[in-house]
Amino acid sequence: MTIGVLGGGQLGRMIALAGYKLGQRFVFLDPGAESTAGQVGNLRVGAYDNEERLSELARKSDVVTYEFENVPVGSARFLNELVPVFPPPRALEVSQDRVTEKEFFEQLGIPTPGFAAVSSREELEQAVARLGLPAVLKTRRFGYDGKGQWVLRTEADVAAAWEALGAASLIMEAFVPFQRELSILSVRSRTGETRFWPLVENEHRDGILRLSLPKSDAWTPELQASAEAFAGRVLAELDYVGVLAIELFYTGDKLIVNEMAPRVHNSGHWTIEGAETSQFENHVRAILGQPLGSTRMVGYSGMINVIGKMPPRDAVLAVEGAHLHAYGKDAAPGRKIGHVTVRADTRRELCDKLEALLPIVDPT
Amino acid sequence: MTIGVLGGGQLGRMIALAGYKLGQRFVFLDPGAESTAGQVGNLRVGAYDNEERLSELARKSDVVTYEFENVPVGSARFLNELVPVFPPPRALEVSQDRVTEKEFFEQLGIPTPGFAAVSSREELEQAVARLGLPAVLKTRRFGYDGKGQWVLRTEADVAAAWEALGAASLIMEAFVPFQRELSILSVRSRTGETRFWPLVENEHRDGILRLSLPKSDAWTPELQASAEAFAGRVLAELDYVGVLAIELFYTGDKLIVNEMAPRVHNSGHWTIEGAETSQFENHVRAILGQPLGSTRMVGYSGMINVIGKMPPRDAVLAVEGAHLHAYGKDAAPGRKIGHVTVRADTRRELCDKLEALLPIVDPT
Repeated sequence: MTIGVLGGGQLGRMIALAGYKLGQRFVFLDPGAESTAGQVGNLRVGAYDNEERLSELARKSDVVTYEFENVPVGSARFLNELVPVFPPPRALEVSQDRVTEKEFFEQLGIPTPGFAAVSSREELEQAVARLGLPAVLKTRRFGYDGKGQWVLRTEADVAAAWEALGAASLIMEAFVPFQRELSILSVRSRTGETRFWPLVENEHRDGILRLSLPKSDAWTPELQASAEAFAGRVLAELDYVGVLAIELFYTGDKLIVNEMAPRVHNSGHWTIEGAETSQFENHVRAILGQPLGSTRMVGYSGMINVIGKMPPRDAVLAVEGAHLHAYGKDAAPGRKIGHVTVRADTRRELCDKLEALLPIVDPT
Repeated sequence: MTIGVLGGGQLGRMIALAGYKLGQRFVFLDPGAESTAGQVGNLRVGAYDNEERLSELARKSDVVTYEFENVPVGSARFLNELVPVFPPPRALEVSQDRVTEKEFFEQLGIPTPGFAAVSSREELEQAVARLGLPAVLKTRRFGYDGKGQWVLRTEADVAAAWEALGAASLIMEAFVPFQRELSILSVRSRTGETRFWPLVENEHRDGILRLSLPKSDAWTPELQASAEAFAGRVLAELDYVGVLAIELFYTGDKLIVNEMAPRVHNSGHWTIEGAETSQFENHVRAILGQPLGSTRMVGYSGMINVIGKMPPRDAVLAVEGAHLHAYGKDAAPGRKIGHVTVRADTRRELCDKLEALLPIVDPT
């Protein structure tokens, strides 16, 4: 089978590396001629809304997926008339607009931070009055890695944020005094079979994911069950197919859903070595309607992102159990260009290895 | 870096999938336009002794390796004038001729079956008189998967084998009444760093590998040490770089070396999921001079080859812990087109899973 992928970044690259193992073929569509997936597969260069390129992708593919949640919904629907597209275009539509997404969660009884749509200075004042400060003001669309977000602590912040963001459609969200940031990765096959990986604890800095720890010391069976219940509702409601990531805040006594990504996710990269089946392989199995693989952990793992520039390779590889992933991308400040997963037999050993690796991989 | 690979079969394909993870690029040279590595990388089509193609490969590559031990030694030496070639061409030369190979082992004090070079009917009779029957008559060169081999039990077999093989340069080997067939996979980096994976027990049928079990119940620390000592001598003598496979017979009280393959090896495919670092990744690290990864086992694994035709995918994938590898090759009798590795937490659980998988994957 040939799988078409909208987007040619590292997520598409890693989907292909998992799919090649299963004997599948890949074709990518991305506007960037230098997209990293082109190093490992057939890359077609074109805009996501170029109907000629989309039709060509459909002709070459038995099924189409995407690795980028800002693909135009219209393009996904256009393709879906020609070839099955998974995850379903509606998942894109819901996740692309933070207001639509939060309304969707509310309808499913999934707790989210309080929020208000903001499209005028007056609505902003009303939102501040209703939700209070601190709060977060975000663009409704096209946010990623913390871009397009302002934390509002004072009335002065409100004025400054409005100056900066005012032209766009915005959402104001109540600030959640969370203790930990978690994510739940789930996958649903065309057959309806559903699996969940263990909850992951994530550390961000400057809005970018730095560290992911599956089943960290915050993990309890109750939290896992709660997160799975939320994800399960989303999967069922959307008749979802593929990997779905949901980011959550843990406040110390409950989980609150922040947002979802209808795709494989950075906080699931540890699954390549750390789980019996990786998010990438299960995504491929799911969109082909094949049985899903076990999501159990294999030992203890942690993942550190490589941001900006590659660490000294020899120093990383010399740590026993360290697995370096380099995406073949040029170095650039704030850019995700690789990650390192380290695996160990015990949590203690994992901590020692992470302590050895952190100053090498993420020295800032 | 760009790694050139002589040979575009499944071994090259799996080297590339491991190397892509590390951010490396690949270019393959193979006479077959349909070579499976072409599905995942840049395939140049040409004969292994086409100097124009070899020069092109050298120009495009920072380092060259091979996945096929019958590459002409002259081609490897030609390339080695232009770009580093690993494993060293002398390893090819030694392993391509069974007589040279056995003399090489003898010089290193490594036990091998008794043998005699045979190039005439008269030499064949002398060999029979010296080594006795049963014995095995083989072509000195270009044997693989049991091809070009005759087992001699009677004088009638001797005559028939001479009829069939007579024109070629031959070797007669004393028959070793072995209990088990084992292999040791080793790897040596450009820096001299050396690692060994656990001994693997192998089952062949019709000369083709069917099943590999690392650290089977035949394993003892003494056998491991003995096999590592043999491999270590070969690695050092050849100033070897890359993965080396050595096949051994275990007679119940000692190990006898059968042959070596200067490349990644079918009996090491289990390392993709079953070892902390796969043979493919360590081969790439070795030829780039990077630190080698841990070769420890991760749980218990077994590998079953997929010969001839693909088993029902859903049935394979439905076994928890089963990892299907499909090489993207057409089905054909006796052809290796994939493998399945299954991983478990205990040996008992592994046996249960292998018993479930064997009738599906290898029904004959």
